[in-house]
Amino acid sequence: MKKSISPVPLLYPSPVLLICTYDSAGRPDAMTAAWGGICCSEPPCISLGIQKSRYTWENIKERGEFMVCIPSASLVKETDFFGIASGRNLNKFTETGLTPVPSDIIEAPYIEECPIAIACRAQNLMPIGSHILIVGEILSILADEEACGEDGMPDISLVRPLLYDSLKKTYYNIGEPAGKAYSSGMKFRRTVQEP
Amino acid sequence: MKKSISPVPLLYPSPVLLICTYDSAGRPDAMTAAWGGICCSEPPCISLGIQKSRYTWENIKERGEFMVCIPSASLVKETDFFGIASGRNLNKFTETGLTPVPSDIIEAPYIEECPIAIACRAQNLMPIGSHILIVGEILSILADEEACGEDGMPDISLVRPLLYDSLKKTYYNIGEPAGKAYSSGMKFRRTVQEP
Repeated sequence: MKKSISPVPLLYPSPVLLICTYDSAGRPDAMTAAWGGICCSEPPCISLGIQKSRYTWENIKERGEFMVCIPSASLVKETDFFGIASGRNLNKFTETGLTPVPSDIIEAPYIEECPIAIACRAQNLMPIGSHILIVGEILSILADEEACGEDGMPDISLVRPLLYDSLKKTYYNIGEPAGKAYSSGMKFRRTVQEP
Repeated sequence: MKKSISPVPLLYPSPVLLICTYDSAGRPDAMTAAWGGICCSEPPCISLGIQKSRYTWENIKERGEFMVCIPSASLVKETDFFGIASGRNLNKFTETGLTPVPSDIIEAPYIEECPIAIACRAQNLMPIGSHILIVGEILSILADEEACGEDGMPDISLVRPLLYDSLKKTYYNIGEPAGKAYSSGMKFRRTVQEP
């Protein structure tokens, strides 16, 4: 039996991202974001929903570029702090000891300690209620060598990203593999192909 | 040391969603989607990136409403099949044995076997390259009683959602809790408040 629940922003799982920007004075800042996802494959794009009151939104408006960093589970405390404090009042990098590094590609820093950094240029904006939806085209991806597998590409088990449950306000680790895509469902396809 | 990787649609973790619609003949259909996320809190909205060639896009264009169902890990094979086959050619519900149920709220079915079903009405569209970004306002949420905790709200450990790694084309389970939000980062805040 299903029961009805009032509308809340619920989606399992939400990602845990650090959105890095420079402010108007050129100071690096970052905020934690869970409202985001891939929205296009060609060109590859990320969509983010950001509250209009956020310092990060001011920074993106001004420079049009931002870095999406994926923190490892080992950075959960630092990551949480980036969601509590505002770059208007303090330098979150100084407080946490994380290292902002200038990018060669865009006007936004990445975080040295994060295994993945995705350089994005804002291509489209859409105001929606409390948030503004920003579509950023992925221009380049930086990955720690140690977070890559034998094929040279990032390996999720080495990256160890977090995920977020907004109902319980809890971060989770990634668990065990559950199945291969375009593969585990083929058993149903075979029944179709039988005459 | 970080190395540069060509732009690909990479974000850890991506969700695993079943987007349910009726086609023009009123037949229920669903597709698996990983390009999506929450994009606004007030009103609560979900953004989805869907290829314009998808049958689901035709259906959403026609009816303006869709159901976002969250499958449990136990449905991984059925979920994968919904991403392999097209509703143009067959009825995926018949093939997998899953049960489409009419909604009282929108013109789209939900899947009885999925613990969570989120009723959405398309509010905004934005074409981006290969995909179209659809913003759907969450009108209502249905949840299995057995997937809810003592507070009456969905419990992620009972829902057991999947997540998707597009690089390895692999589904994963949710792992162990990694920390509390607005809490584990407070240790950094305390250092700030000291004079």
